[in-house]
Amino acid sequence: MNVRTAQSLFHPQSVAIVGASRDPQKWGFTFLLNVAKGGYAGRVYPVNPREKEILGFKTYSTVAQIPEPVDQVILVVPPSDILRVLHDCGKNGARVGVVITAGFGEINQEGKKIEREMVGLARSLGMRLVGPNCQGIVSTFPAHLYAHMPPQFPAAGPLGMVSQSGNLATSIVELANSKFLGFSRIISSGNEADLQTLDFLEYLAEDSQTEVILSYLEGIKDGPRFIRTVGRVSSQKPLLMVKAGRSAAGIRAASSHTGALTGYDELFDGLCQQTGIIRSETIEEMMDVAAALLTQPLPKGRKVGILTLGGGWGVLAADSCARAGLVLPGLSREMAKKLDHILPPWWNRMNPIDMVAGYRKGDLIQSLELLLQSKPLDGVLMLGLGWRAVRGGFLRAAAQNFSPNEMEAAGRDWIEEEGKIFADMQELGRKYRKPVLLASDMIHLVPGYEESLRSRRVAAYPSLHRAVKAYLGLVRRYESLQGSFKE
Amino acid sequence: MNVRTAQSLFHPQSVAIVGASRDPQKWGFTFLLNVAKGGYAGRVYPVNPREKEILGFKTYSTVAQIPEPVDQVILVVPPSDILRVLHDCGKNGARVGVVITAGFGEINQEGKKIEREMVGLARSLGMRLVGPNCQGIVSTFPAHLYAHMPPQFPAAGPLGMVSQSGNLATSIVELANSKFLGFSRIISSGNEADLQTLDFLEYLAEDSQTEVILSYLEGIKDGPRFIRTVGRVSSQKPLLMVKAGRSAAGIRAASSHTGALTGYDELFDGLCQQTGIIRSETIEEMMDVAAALLTQPLPKGRKVGILTLGGGWGVLAADSCARAGLVLPGLSREMAKKLDHILPPWWNRMNPIDMVAGYRKGDLIQSLELLLQSKPLDGVLMLGLGWRAVRGGFLRAAAQNFSPNEMEAAGRDWIEEEGKIFADMQELGRKYRKPVLLASDMIHLVPGYEESLRSRRVAAYPSLHRAVKAYLGLVRRYESLQGSFKE
Repeated sequence: MNVRTAQSLFHPQSVAIVGASRDPQKWGFTFLLNVAKGGYAGRVYPVNPREKEILGFKTYSTVAQIPEPVDQVILVVPPSDILRVLHDCGKNGARVGVVITAGFGEINQEGKKIEREMVGLARSLGMRLVGPNCQGIVSTFPAHLYAHMPPQFPAAGPLGMVSQSGNLATSIVELANSKFLGFSRIISSGNEADLQTLDFLEYLAEDSQTEVILSYLEGIKDGPRFIRTVGRVSSQKPLLMVKAGRSAAGIRAASSHTGALTGYDELFDGLCQQTGIIRSETIEEMMDVAAALLTQPLPKGRKVGILTLGGGWGVLAADSCARAGLVLPGLSREMAKKLDHILPPWWNRMNPIDMVAGYRKGDLIQSLELLLQSKPLDGVLMLGLGWRAVRGGFLRAAAQNFSPNEMEAAGRDWIEEEGKIFADMQELGRKYRKPVLLASDMIHLVPGYEESLRSRRVAAYPSLHRAVKAYLGLVRRYESLQGSFKE
Repeated sequence: MNVRTAQSLFHPQSVAIVGASRDPQKWGFTFLLNVAKGGYAGRVYPVNPREKEILGFKTYSTVAQIPEPVDQVILVVPPSDILRVLHDCGKNGARVGVVITAGFGEINQEGKKIEREMVGLARSLGMRLVGPNCQGIVSTFPAHLYAHMPPQFPAAGPLGMVSQSGNLATSIVELANSKFLGFSRIISSGNEADLQTLDFLEYLAEDSQTEVILSYLEGIKDGPRFIRTVGRVSSQKPLLMVKAGRSAAGIRAASSHTGALTGYDELFDGLCQQTGIIRSETIEEMMDVAAALLTQPLPKGRKVGILTLGGGWGVLAADSCARAGLVLPGLSREMAKKLDHILPPWWNRMNPIDMVAGYRKGDLIQSLELLLQSKPLDGVLMLGLGWRAVRGGFLRAAAQNFSPNEMEAAGRDWIEEEGKIFADMQELGRKYRKPVLLASDMIHLVPGYEESLRSRRVAAYPSLHRAVKAYLGLVRRYESLQGSFKE
């Protein structure tokens, strides 16, 4: 897409909403409310021939009557009205249309024909289109534009997303929100009658506000262009993708959803390897990888050291690493000797290193530093940190019933101590340029703890399996960059 | 284990804690504090020769001096003191010892020898032992006994758990807590020098308070007994298991953790099929299956109908079902005709049924009932419910800024309406004796919503993948019961 189109989509000076409504049950109301609540910085023009004013905004009876050429027109009107509204847009000199309306190419061949007509008309009027059958656009910085269906107002942040499904975009924003991660741009691309996923990926690759790109894809229209484009995009920024239509059932469902023709799944897997796309099975996994990429140095290989505060977590993590194709090298004799000075005599002398359900202040940091200094290890997984803080919180609460002051003091110490250890470990990883991923199923138990960790750019996962998969995402990013360096 | 042992472990009249301490940093303090905070109904005897009183409890210098035979003695003393303390227990007439202390068979052959000595001595004194290297016992009803390490006090409920890892028991309790599920008994079995996982499984199978049994297993000592026992147990109650040591790395780690000898993973998978164990890859998955078993009728086959409020969710669920070996039959012509009367003209006429991003009151319930009445379908997945309640909450909040009363009213209606739909759908499933699993990534966004759903025994999952795997767990339970019926 050219600069003018990109500006009109992501930095519009003005937005019109055709089909704006006073009825809270209607999407035409929702779009206007969301744009208003989101604090959009430009001019807003609701279009509805039967109203004078909605939510405090002066209303126009047609787009043609708006007193300036509008950058972005959002169409929330029945399919039968689309062509008429586009003609009005032409009279106005509008630049981009976002067609929310469903009922086109995802329904039948007749719908596909109308889509083509719509695109032809728009092009002849000098316009580009997003959609139809989409849920709109978010552009946080600096426009504060939240022109989409769900009541979601993610903060400005490093994630750029294009999704062929509106509801999956919504789910992904929720997941990001739970990780305190924000967005630069969110595009729900729908049936992609005109502008396609590839156009948006190209934009996000160049967009200075975007660091990591997310994509939910059902189908592609132009295979050769797809391969060229995603290869270029992922050489610039990490490109994470969930590609649906793995199964016959999924392929049929995708066809009825966005009219997408999904292809052979194995071919697509190969294509991901070739082009550097990091494909995930689920959106949860994709977001876990995104959080790792945004906080961690890349590991320079697959060899992982594991520190655990409980044996069982170590055993399951070893299994999980093996399944993910990560390698747990044994400890060298020298390393074991050094750890002998730090750990109690009965420590297990292997990787995963079991810190034996407790640690003295400093043990953990010293052990971690030894692992990070070790040449054969590319990064570290740290399991089970957080329980001391939880016990600290419990002690503090219990002290109110049982009086002894030392309980209160111990509780407070533990909470502060562990919070600091989390952050110190992460810093240590950055110093040695190796990732340190923390898995802890209890950080949510101490109120405010998780948010404070996120603000210090700590990558903490609620389960060891998720930490292992996120770690694998880092490895794949490293390996894909290596591949492209070699060429 | 005999009745006397079971009574002493799960319904003790008295508990002694040897190694009780005033120091909040020591486990000997933690056990006493947890037993006290948990509201244990019996008599508590701290044992410590240097103290007169701890946390308000009169302290004894040895077990032998306690004025009655103690049902359960918890040993939190160094390995070197164990045999001496056991002799004291013998003088007291104590019945069961729970050896928390680590540093035995998981360390080396010498440790294994001491374990054998310890068990021999205990047996000669008429005692049975739990552990060593374990984190204790919880028995909620009616004893209120929380004699374990973590500050966790799960409510009484239908889950019984035996875990060879203390920290995984802790993680599992946390997961159950987040689902508002309680426990009957929790046993951390450690190195299992005397009493083994199988003894506890047999007990839980007979225990009237236990409906679903959970097990984290690293290794088994007696293969033939294992096969006999778990087959019998799982014919009585669902037996869910995470078995570690899938990989060479995991096997090594397990050996250093609890001294367990893990075996060939493929053999174990076959054994699960043969005996009806429902094996899960992760503890998260195991708990998702448990929640389904506790709230849902069993599906009588693998054929699933999907209702979705967004196309993308349907596409990914179709993929996920295919991967899980679940089948999505097409809709019969009759069924499609009936749905034509309910859904808007552009509905997709296939399974998953896309409710097209919105529904009128009653549509959903009517569509669900049609699916439940359909002979070819064994159960239903419902995706995306909850967004209307979230939008309702947003509207209510926004109404304060924007004034119109209808926003306030619409908001309130939507929240109440969806809460009722959730519960009504679940009731409908029970009426037709088919499972209805709900996947919704936003129920946590409306405060109090999730808890109210759980209290109405609604099975709601935060992602469609997790709902699909939980559904598969129900199918496996049904198939395993069928298998045993056929024999």
